[in-house]
Amino acid sequence: MDSVLLPRLANRSTLLVSSAIRDLLHLGERPEVLSLAGGLPDGSTFPVERIAEATTRALAFPGRYGATALQYGPSEGLTTFREWIAAGSLLHDGHGAIEATLVTTGSQQALDLLGRVLVDPGDVVVVEDPLYLGARQVLTAAGAHLVGVAVDHDGMDVDALEDRLRCGLRPRLVYTVPNFQNPTGAVLAVDRRERLAALALRYGFVIIEDDPYTALAFSSERHPSIARFAPDHVVTLGSASKVLAPGLRIGWLQAAPWIHRSLVLAKQSSDLHTPCLDQLVALDLLSDTPFLVDHVSRLRATYATKAAVLHEALGAEFRTTKPRGGMFLWGHAARDTQAELARAIDAGVAYVPGTAFAVDRDRSRALRLSYASLSPVELRDAAARLRAVFR
Amino acid sequence: MDSVLLPRLANRSTLLVSSAIRDLLHLGERPEVLSLAGGLPDGSTFPVERIAEATTRALAFPGRYGATALQYGPSEGLTTFREWIAAGSLLHDGHGAIEATLVTTGSQQALDLLGRVLVDPGDVVVVEDPLYLGARQVLTAAGAHLVGVAVDHDGMDVDALEDRLRCGLRPRLVYTVPNFQNPTGAVLAVDRRERLAALALRYGFVIIEDDPYTALAFSSERHPSIARFAPDHVVTLGSASKVLAPGLRIGWLQAAPWIHRSLVLAKQSSDLHTPCLDQLVALDLLSDTPFLVDHVSRLRATYATKAAVLHEALGAEFRTTKPRGGMFLWGHAARDTQAELARAIDAGVAYVPGTAFAVDRDRSRALRLSYASLSPVELRDAAARLRAVFR
Repeated sequence: MDSVLLPRLANRSTLLVSSAIRDLLHLGERPEVLSLAGGLPDGSTFPVERIAEATTRALAFPGRYGATALQYGPSEGLTTFREWIAAGSLLHDGHGAIEATLVTTGSQQALDLLGRVLVDPGDVVVVEDPLYLGARQVLTAAGAHLVGVAVDHDGMDVDALEDRLRCGLRPRLVYTVPNFQNPTGAVLAVDRRERLAALALRYGFVIIEDDPYTALAFSSERHPSIARFAPDHVVTLGSASKVLAPGLRIGWLQAAPWIHRSLVLAKQSSDLHTPCLDQLVALDLLSDTPFLVDHVSRLRATYATKAAVLHEALGAEFRTTKPRGGMFLWGHAARDTQAELARAIDAGVAYVPGTAFAVDRDRSRALRLSYASLSPVELRDAAARLRAVFR
Repeated sequence: MDSVLLPRLANRSTLLVSSAIRDLLHLGERPEVLSLAGGLPDGSTFPVERIAEATTRALAFPGRYGATALQYGPSEGLTTFREWIAAGSLLHDGHGAIEATLVTTGSQQALDLLGRVLVDPGDVVVVEDPLYLGARQVLTAAGAHLVGVAVDHDGMDVDALEDRLRCGLRPRLVYTVPNFQNPTGAVLAVDRRERLAALALRYGFVIIEDDPYTALAFSSERHPSIARFAPDHVVTLGSASKVLAPGLRIGWLQAAPWIHRSLVLAKQSSDLHTPCLDQLVALDLLSDTPFLVDHVSRLRATYATKAAVLHEALGAEFRTTKPRGGMFLWGHAARDTQAELARAIDAGVAYVPGTAFAVDRDRSRALRLSYASLSPVELRDAAARLRAVFR
């Protein structure tokens, strides 16, 4: 290799960061480790039989050029799926315009397309601090300059954002996970949604409303989509990953027409289209309302129980708040959580250190705990091990 | 919309070009039009029953965190699939190193990842002239400056490329479809492969060897992969789209380690991973050698017959050469093919005008004709209509 002239990688490629979660998942793979680190949904909730029925139907579904499930499809997604997106469901607010919809290969791809279409290198992007890792990866790769706004129990601190805007901050984008935020579990209060939308209109930025956890609410309380308040300034993302199964890689977005056309072209360039088989299978389940109502209600009960078990088993030690939905608890320890991680893994428990999610603020004593994939018994064990590590 | 401040799109988004093929597909959708324009494989060849069996097996396949088909998977692709890539098959040369492999959401995604990882805006990228549209879209979006090298019956004119290199051309990348090139059907001669590899070593560029059509060879002749001659300088792409079914969106690549790590990070940022269900289904068929041998031999016979029918029905008028594999004929007409397209569609036949594939050379009288999706009877009709239009 020394004797030949190797080309160099593109400059942008050095901006890509490895996702700390995915690297940590390797640690949790030892069978004796109880991992609270991953973001995996509970595999025992996957509706495998129902999906098997749906694949049989999908493969029998004809098309002009051979089975629709198996032939090339439109970059925007199958029309039937787009109709479902526009109509709304248990999983999302529909905005009514089929032309505004796009099926994506998971909502990670939606983020990626938005990074390409809306971000030039050096652009300011406001994010929640702490921030979802997948968004950080996309935005950093797009060359964004990230500015963190703190998150409290009611979500992003919109007052603080407004102060920054008054002082001259001019973001291209504001990124938020309004419901059961990853990693904090916070829910953006309704008045903050409305004010955030008003700021988007006044200061001319786009809001990315990334909403994969809505259906995993532990109560019937449901807030309106931010897009309701500023339809031309908000792109709303949804996902089947947390409700059906992530391995299907089915996500979607709704965007104003002025953004949508560019997103479709970026999608075409990225992978032509999302696999048709997975679209048909997911749609079969998502459009079966009796199934979905029943399935989601069992999911909610499962995750609500687990959340309560972990929260109670941790006691007051990590200052967690009782989650209202989603998959994560956000805690605070007495010592540096990254420094303690190796010891924790030796003690048989894994988590994601807060530093992985930090933007501008010190999160060195914070940690994210997922209750989604362990059983209640394992969660109690994991909590006991964690308390022992930080005692 | 006038009263509010709308943000602007990112500069790069304006670089995205619409794929002329996909826009033209809309024209061919009228049932009376016989379309030679599309790049769709023959849907009647899809092994639907065999895929249905494979999905049943895939969904029954367990995993530590729930069915492997439905849970999140590694960004690199499932290990079993990567082992298959490294080992080689009827569809591709395996390079032996599992670590060098990556499963992609179709080979369009592989191109897209390479554009991100290897191309900085303004970089020179040498391409075949005429050029595959999907590659143009990716490279243009990445900000590449495209330089076309002519294609003859033996593929890219490597002599001409060498002359340009001697005169100071310094490409970051050279992109080629070595087997049954889209749109010309040309096969890169073995001595040219070897010399192209030598030029990559001498001048320090990377070769993208995009190889979706290898299995669709009409004879047993098979050339070695360019990567054999310069493993550290070649990234080889493969695809199940033309052999099994494109709707599964299963492609793969093999790359030297110095590129591979960045590709995995870009893949993670793009869509986390390719759907696991589709990976398991495709692998079930691809690793079933008796099935694959039989299926591919029937595919070859089907496409060889169609190719011969269209080639003969066109007569000498369009100066097509008898194809040796793949899905396309490249022809030359007496008049501007883009100007005549509307008239052709009125006459009930569609094609892609050569201009869509042009890089530096005038292709206004050329046209690409796909024989893949029509029946032999329809191909004869389409040829008759085409001859009438250009008479």
